[in-house]
Amino acid sequence: MPNPISGFSKLSKIEKIEWLLDTYFSDKESARALVKQYWNSDEKLQKLHDEFIENTITNFYLPLGVAPNFKINDKLFTIPMAIEESSVVAAASKSAKFWLDRGGFKTEVISTEKIGQVHFMYNGDAEALQHYFECVKPKLFEATSDITKNMRRRGGGILDIELRNKSEGLDNYYQLHATFETLDAMGANFINSCLEAFAKTFQSEAKDQLDGDLEIVMSILSNYVPNCLVRAEVSCPISELASKDISNPQLFANKFKQAVNIAEIEPYRAVTHNKGIMNGIDAVVLATGNDFRAVEAGVHAYASRDGKYSSLTHCSIEDDTFKFWIEIPLALGTVGGLTSLHPLVKFSLEMLEKPSARDLMQIVAVAGLAQNFAAVKSLTTTGIQEGHMKMHLMNILNQFEATTDEKTALIEHFKINVVTHSAVVEAIEKLRR
Amino acid sequence: MPNPISGFSKLSKIEKIEWLLDTYFSDKESARALVKQYWNSDEKLQKLHDEFIENTITNFYLPLGVAPNFKINDKLFTIPMAIEESSVVAAASKSAKFWLDRGGFKTEVISTEKIGQVHFMYNGDAEALQHYFECVKPKLFEATSDITKNMRRRGGGILDIELRNKSEGLDNYYQLHATFETLDAMGANFINSCLEAFAKTFQSEAKDQLDGDLEIVMSILSNYVPNCLVRAEVSCPISELASKDISNPQLFANKFKQAVNIAEIEPYRAVTHNKGIMNGIDAVVLATGNDFRAVEAGVHAYASRDGKYSSLTHCSIEDDTFKFWIEIPLALGTVGGLTSLHPLVKFSLEMLEKPSARDLMQIVAVAGLAQNFAAVKSLTTTGIQEGHMKMHLMNILNQFEATTDEKTALIEHFKINVVTHSAVVEAIEKLRR
Repeated sequence: MPNPISGFSKLSKIEKIEWLLDTYFSDKESARALVKQYWNSDEKLQKLHDEFIENTITNFYLPLGVAPNFKINDKLFTIPMAIEESSVVAAASKSAKFWLDRGGFKTEVISTEKIGQVHFMYNGDAEALQHYFECVKPKLFEATSDITKNMRRRGGGILDIELRNKSEGLDNYYQLHATFETLDAMGANFINSCLEAFAKTFQSEAKDQLDGDLEIVMSILSNYVPNCLVRAEVSCPISELASKDISNPQLFANKFKQAVNIAEIEPYRAVTHNKGIMNGIDAVVLATGNDFRAVEAGVHAYASRDGKYSSLTHCSIEDDTFKFWIEIPLALGTVGGLTSLHPLVKFSLEMLEKPSARDLMQIVAVAGLAQNFAAVKSLTTTGIQEGHMKMHLMNILNQFEATTDEKTALIEHFKINVVTHSAVVEAIEKLRR
Repeated sequence: MPNPISGFSKLSKIEKIEWLLDTYFSDKESARALVKQYWNSDEKLQKLHDEFIENTITNFYLPLGVAPNFKINDKLFTIPMAIEESSVVAAASKSAKFWLDRGGFKTEVISTEKIGQVHFMYNGDAEALQHYFECVKPKLFEATSDITKNMRRRGGGILDIELRNKSEGLDNYYQLHATFETLDAMGANFINSCLEAFAKTFQSEAKDQLDGDLEIVMSILSNYVPNCLVRAEVSCPISELASKDISNPQLFANKFKQAVNIAEIEPYRAVTHNKGIMNGIDAVVLATGNDFRAVEAGVHAYASRDGKYSSLTHCSIEDDTFKFWIEIPLALGTVGGLTSLHPLVKFSLEMLEKPSARDLMQIVAVAGLAQNFAAVKSLTTTGIQEGHMKMHLMNILNQFEATTDEKTALIEHFKINVVTHSAVVEAIEKLRR
């Protein structure tokens, strides 16, 4: 068993790698060469990437792909997507192309409110606390005036601060529940700085004015942002759904709607339905330097807001019109954080013509809706395995470094045979004997 | 406005990039140089990464960092983490070190069952359907015997198939609900192939034996896997929590527990609490070639399983013992998919001493628990902004390519001044005047 190591973070990058190689790798030469093969040849650029996080040893590659032909509110976009899963970019591109000729995507930002909370315990009289809160509220704004100065100048800042009594759920538990408008910033640092200032002021002023003990537990933004909401939609007359893959548009529309209805009532299906939506969303979130864990948490909590986990997209058929839409909470930024640091994030944002945070919300929602349209269309028509198995086959062939001739022969062979890892391996071996 | 493009996917990589540059970029030279700067110098390796997805133009870098000193069931691990967010690897390392001297992490795989469903509509008699299902069930196993052969040989395969009547939620809606043991594979392809075979057999046999119409809507695995569950735990006598940062262990334990209790009852807090857990989880999921969207969807749905979105971790104080644990569903693979294709995934798996899927479930759960311990500890003691603002400052300084001398001066300056983007910019400009 390896020994614990002290002071690892203080080692140089090379020393860290050598310790890893000594501790865990039998073929050190190859492992060392591999790690270095992924370093960028530009040392300064590599240093920039190394400093994003701690104990960096190399760059993990996610492919950066692009999906063109997205018509969003009558403007054409090519969407950058960073993702390791095959078929996602292809599906997005297909959906974009499909809706390009059918009016494109229509989107709307419904709201942009962010949330933060100071959580505290108070064992005194609730009415006295309410009175104290009302007195001290102006001082909370004052205490943050330095932090909020620039945001206010641009039209954002703190929207409101409320006192919330949560002692029914947990003895003595209260919150300062604050709402914010952070404009083009995701706002995490801004909100957390405000909250910590609220907490400090709220506690220090309490000493003289309250009987009970008031103890701050923590101050932190919430990634649950049900009032930072965007909607994206596609619609067309049912007859216009006809296409190469859709010979009977009415049948297609009915079956598509059924599949969405199933995801609305069955959590086992809703989870995977929404997972497919997030394939599209996270790929754009990553490429634009936003935090996909924050987005994921907020979106899935929203999917469970009515007490039962449900679909994020919905479908209607009315008066011969097919309509398919999504409404999701997305707290995104296009300034600050990685957006100004990661060269490929800057590149992605330029490809999107330097969107505001509101613009980006709409683009990301469209990527999610497009992904879901492609997935549900494929599931309700050919099934998804046809495409996936082709991919699976190609991956195994690549793994065995199959030649172009071998690939041609085996693709033909597996048009009529079931693709399993072992079947492909057998077929390659047979071919090579 | 750019024109739509036809046949984009058929263009070569260079042609795709040139179209992008022509369409969206004013400074084409720099943009072209940037995209190419991120290509790997090894053409064959680059081709491998290009082929993971469609329309790849370059490699999006996520830093790959490592967190050493994780003692899990008395064995020492260094955990690879691919993540763009600062502080996550540092927090994981700190937690690992903290618990190293306090017994380490104890983990347990509770269950490993995967799920898939054939969703269908049937407008006839429910009892007749049940009878038909029982008759045809052996044929469903037969129809998949080729697909399941290897999995069965290794001890896995189809566990059971049930007919579920869901017509209360949606008229005529039924499911074949199937459970699987997929061993070291995540199993998506395996499960989907089985399901499509079930669907085909189930429908074709129905023609002669059922009165009503039976129509398959779709066949697909579920990423909701509440019976693919792992538990990780840390515990120690409260007095042993004493450390450099924790001078009063009893106070710390109480406050830590309060913070966890808050996340249990307040969804706004639970979402961000769990988001922090997923920082740790996704970083390992990515580094080991697994699909973080699948994991995210399953985990957050699990967090909402009781009708209200809640914390994934829990804390108890009993008989002077502090205990902190997580129980989460994780469907992971250590064979198939990217695990055998992405060289850095193979590297990460070797660092983890070639874990089975069960081993990896435990390691990933520990990464989540460690992350949450660090976050809640920091939130309930110093607050998170102290560390974050230091990072934020360094990021801005890097963006302005500050020299080592400038960095030293400004770090000193911002020990007593509030870090905001504009304040840092002003300070740099002042220094440079």
